[in-house]
Amino acid sequence: MPAAAATVAETSTVAAEPSVCAPLPVLGRDVAVPLVTGGEVTYAALDYAASAPALQRVWDDVAAYAPYYGSVHRGAGYLSQLSTDLFENARRTVAEFLDCRADDQLVFTRSTTDSLNLLAAALPDGCEVFVFETEHHAALLPWRRAGRVTFLDAPDSPAQAVETLERALADRDPHGPALVCVTGASNVTGELWPVRELAAAAHAHGARIVLDAAQLAPHRAVSVRDLGVDWVAFSGHKLYAPFGSGVLAGRADWLRAAEPYLAGGGASRTVARREDGGVDVQWHETAARHEAGSPNVIGAYAIASACKALTEAGFDALAEREDVLVRAVREGLADVPEVRFLSLFGDDAPRVGVLSFVVDGWNSSHFAAALSAEYGIGVRDGLFCAHPLVRRLLGGDTGGAGECGAPEAGALNAIRVSLGAGTPEEHVARFVRAVRELVRDGARWTYRTVDGRCVPDPSGRA
Amino acid sequence: MPAAAATVAETSTVAAEPSVCAPLPVLGRDVAVPLVTGGEVTYAALDYAASAPALQRVWDDVAAYAPYYGSVHRGAGYLSQLSTDLFENARRTVAEFLDCRADDQLVFTRSTTDSLNLLAAALPDGCEVFVFETEHHAALLPWRRAGRVTFLDAPDSPAQAVETLERALADRDPHGPALVCVTGASNVTGELWPVRELAAAAHAHGARIVLDAAQLAPHRAVSVRDLGVDWVAFSGHKLYAPFGSGVLAGRADWLRAAEPYLAGGGASRTVARREDGGVDVQWHETAARHEAGSPNVIGAYAIASACKALTEAGFDALAEREDVLVRAVREGLADVPEVRFLSLFGDDAPRVGVLSFVVDGWNSSHFAAALSAEYGIGVRDGLFCAHPLVRRLLGGDTGGAGECGAPEAGALNAIRVSLGAGTPEEHVARFVRAVRELVRDGARWTYRTVDGRCVPDPSGRA
Repeated sequence: MPAAAATVAETSTVAAEPSVCAPLPVLGRDVAVPLVTGGEVTYAALDYAASAPALQRVWDDVAAYAPYYGSVHRGAGYLSQLSTDLFENARRTVAEFLDCRADDQLVFTRSTTDSLNLLAAALPDGCEVFVFETEHHAALLPWRRAGRVTFLDAPDSPAQAVETLERALADRDPHGPALVCVTGASNVTGELWPVRELAAAAHAHGARIVLDAAQLAPHRAVSVRDLGVDWVAFSGHKLYAPFGSGVLAGRADWLRAAEPYLAGGGASRTVARREDGGVDVQWHETAARHEAGSPNVIGAYAIASACKALTEAGFDALAEREDVLVRAVREGLADVPEVRFLSLFGDDAPRVGVLSFVVDGWNSSHFAAALSAEYGIGVRDGLFCAHPLVRRLLGGDTGGAGECGAPEAGALNAIRVSLGAGTPEEHVARFVRAVRELVRDGARWTYRTVDGRCVPDPSGRA
Repeated sequence: MPAAAATVAETSTVAAEPSVCAPLPVLGRDVAVPLVTGGEVTYAALDYAASAPALQRVWDDVAAYAPYYGSVHRGAGYLSQLSTDLFENARRTVAEFLDCRADDQLVFTRSTTDSLNLLAAALPDGCEVFVFETEHHAALLPWRRAGRVTFLDAPDSPAQAVETLERALADRDPHGPALVCVTGASNVTGELWPVRELAAAAHAHGARIVLDAAQLAPHRAVSVRDLGVDWVAFSGHKLYAPFGSGVLAGRADWLRAAEPYLAGGGASRTVARREDGGVDVQWHETAARHEAGSPNVIGAYAIASACKALTEAGFDALAEREDVLVRAVREGLADVPEVRFLSLFGDDAPRVGVLSFVVDGWNSSHFAAALSAEYGIGVRDGLFCAHPLVRRLLGGDTGGAGECGAPEAGALNAIRVSLGAGTPEEHVARFVRAVRELVRDGARWTYRTVDGRCVPDPSGRA
């Protein structure tokens, strides 16, 4: 790894508006990376929508706890009891962060993907599921095993989303169980979805609703009660707590009635051999039912720490600041016609700090590689684990390409820039300058595809 | 949390043999905890079989990497590429640690429980499973959903284990798929199982075998090739890397043919809407197939770091040292008839540093609570997520008690002391002294059960 170095000041060609609060300190904020053109520069992490850096505070909390780590729920020792309390307090902290109802259950999982797979495994028999084709694969695919899934066409406005859902639900048998799964903010466009209205529509038709808050929770306050959703899922690694943990929180009844997600210790209350040689098991009915195995205590504690830090910083201030940064991107590139942003609801729809775009005349992988190698900016290119949505926004078939994260060279895909609570203005200003320069002057280096990655060619300058 | 303090020297009443190498430095080695009788003492973590402390080296590696954390497989930025390389290198390091075959797959999971549930979900149709009743619930219970399970009676010697398995396999239809699941070392008695012989027996009858190495891998070298097992599973949190990760490694064919463990991004290669409104998915055939969602990079890296540290320390030296400590426990308590160790294969059977026992005249929860409150020693009491085995070893029904980790007061259960690469001799000497004093003099404090835990009573001294 390159040594951490002092920040290399960049002269911005685009003045961002003064932000309303300072960025929250994150790990890696001083990491310097080499440029293919020589020298090094502070890394600009603009891939928050995939994985956000840890908040410094989260890291400090984890580091302070780590020497006190012990087995939870199981040990008689002091550190085991301390760790058990810390784990269960983390559960309460996160439930408060989500403004859960008193009788909701909160299960620590490994990620949003895991949370939604858990819920899919807990659907009652005959449950119908309704999901927009625009969802991340984590929200699109888990239901296929569980029951009948209706994929809803992409809407072109929040109002049409509600209408589409209303229409689909009106056609269903109102007596059977049904679930709607919807994102709070698109992982591709960053656009906010009308969660409260969709929840009301679901409930009006006797359906339940789960909110995929992977992209929403890091950027906006999420209240289970205010939104009226039945469950919410999010990931630690997008919420500045990248320690392998996630959350599913909400109605206890389906979770309590379901088979345990994993079979094993912790989920089992008693296990006994039967006379006939078989084994009888009684399972817990608390969250432990779905948390078999030793819990990821550090991961849960890290999420709780992030929840506290974000709450203290205040989502109003964080969102205001993020709006300033998003505007700086949009306005800084407004007069570059080659740059086309992707959106379902229109360019000016409210969004979190996630923007996808294509650049006319450029392969997106090539463009992203140049941003990295020549400017030290980390974005993502591809189809962002939301293939149907990105294909629709790109206006056609992408030729079978778009392997998640390793798109084939030449394939039609997009570039995503995403930011959050730790993003300084300089990163955004550098990004705007870089895009303008690349469009105007082209890349200064040549690139080729190696093992599915577009990388600088050793042969040198373009 | 109490502040970390300098080690409080304890005068040992039992001289342990000089060990052959020094303990490996672990986090928490200087943590002081309060004693109910006044003052504080360095915490003696003797619950390694539940969760081991992080090796200092693992922590240092994680801390050095954390600022460089980025999204894996997905991002174009420098830190994303660095993190992707680090994650895939971790996979190779762990595969080497396990001496995997060249065409084996290694999947990062969250724990042994998760690994065995993944394998259970990947069993071919009609697969028969054979498992001893003596297994941890994580190895005992996942198969019940998958197919026909034969629970084998506890053997009283390694040879009888092989005979029992041979007999059971001889009765089966030799043409269908079958799996044997067996532990390498018991989480209750620490006894080593004849894995190589069981693997040979399984293969002789056309069955495959998975090794639950949760308790073996932290203590002994595990070679998939030498043992001849088809799969192996273990957990980071027992291998000095408690960051929410685990491993399943072995034959690729069943894993490749199975439905993805979780549905979501990362596991899906392409997703496309069909003409009829449905969705087509092509899944990866590599380990990614079963790793949907953003991987736990820090967790995987931590396991790889631990594998390197243990390999460098050398398992011969670690095992020799551990034998010395186990002997110190056994010999130090040999003349205390009230202490009865639990074993299947006899007290002198080879074992890792895990010993369970009961103390005549004592409730085990009470005894464990006194070890903690009066001596600063963390052990575990209960049925250790292996209810059928512990009930058998205790010689009867335990009256329906034995909730995993929270046994009801008064229930018949056991005490487990377990140690590992970070255990100093002083902890073992203190444990021996404490057991002797408690048996001889009784507890110095009174205890009561609060929320299922046996804790010191505020009313004070006994």
